[in-house]
Amino acid sequence: MDYYSTYISRLIEEFGRLPGIGGKTAQRLAFHILNQSDEQVKQFARVMLDAKEKVHYCQCCQTLTDRDICPICSSDKRDKSTIMVVETTRDMAAYERTGQYEGVYHVLHGAIDPMKGIGVNDIRLKELIERLKGDVKEVIVATNLGVEGDATALYIRNLVKPTGIKVTRIASGVPVGGDLECIDEVTLLRALNGRVEQ
Amino acid sequence: MDYYSTYISRLIEEFGRLPGIGGKTAQRLAFHILNQSDEQVKQFARVMLDAKEKVHYCQCCQTLTDRDICPICSSDKRDKSTIMVVETTRDMAAYERTGQYEGVYHVLHGAIDPMKGIGVNDIRLKELIERLKGDVKEVIVATNLGVEGDATALYIRNLVKPTGIKVTRIASGVPVGGDLECIDEVTLLRALNGRVEQ
Repeated sequence: MDYYSTYISRLIEEFGRLPGIGGKTAQRLAFHILNQSDEQVKQFARVMLDAKEKVHYCQCCQTLTDRDICPICSSDKRDKSTIMVVETTRDMAAYERTGQYEGVYHVLHGAIDPMKGIGVNDIRLKELIERLKGDVKEVIVATNLGVEGDATALYIRNLVKPTGIKVTRIASGVPVGGDLECIDEVTLLRALNGRVEQ
Repeated sequence: MDYYSTYISRLIEEFGRLPGIGGKTAQRLAFHILNQSDEQVKQFARVMLDAKEKVHYCQCCQTLTDRDICPICSSDKRDKSTIMVVETTRDMAAYERTGQYEGVYHVLHGAIDPMKGIGVNDIRLKELIERLKGDVKEVIVATNLGVEGDATALYIRNLVKPTGIKVTRIASGVPVGGDLECIDEVTLLRALNGRVEQ
């Protein structure tokens, strides 16, 4: 790093702070930026600042949006009585891509993770509880199928169950096209335990 | 992309334009930015704009620097009569890290590549020729050891040779710690042809 101008070193450092970007990649990206036109670099900076300024949480489902209420929450075509709980806006987009889900969402922005000090109050659970006071028939918990996602799912189950609202969890098993011999043991056992009569 | 706010989609697009960053990574990086504090995002944008504004080519060796003449070219301790020609500022930094080279550099910012339409006038060769008018004893060609780097090396050799200045090319062979059975045939042959008496 000492072999570069401080301006270059600082740019490399900023790229290096991004998740999954190592030292070599950070250098590559920084020099790529320096080789772009003034106009292109200004545009990148502007787009970054605009996104940060304009994007905030949907007042209803907490997804990242530039409106007060996101397009899904404000759509007439969506079934407001079914709420799918996901960890991130990206998970929500993944289900939207299926084009088959007609309910609405609730984005937690994380999962309970005591090891990382992420507790119940660090994710958007309060906002979910608030929504349950409305006309809700089912809460589908679609947090990730790992330790944190499962712990969060259990917490939500215990929270929703007493209210009489139906709580479900997305199925866990062998993915479509998955090759049995390449699938981990935990998934194989979950698939076995969750077997469905044909 | 349609499932996100346009501000988010545009940020994903900008990240996706960076070299080696695919669609999934671009999404991950964009959402990482949205999860940073206003202050952090402003700093990233500022560092990017500053670097682009302040960094330009050294008037002598053409490396990227924030000074008129870079620290190496303006150092009393460097031997100005030996010029190592490299393709990029990163290659120059790689040789600086060895801590052993005492000459100066010349950065071409690319290599001749007819397939990509990069010709003699698209890299900083004119500036190198200009420097040869000074008191230069040796030109070490350290362009990459590939088709383009070799073609560029040959071009420089033919350019410098008639002036009577010594032209050398860095050695090509098996890297230190390299396992013979993992090395490609071209490198193995180069190492054989370049063998040194012990």
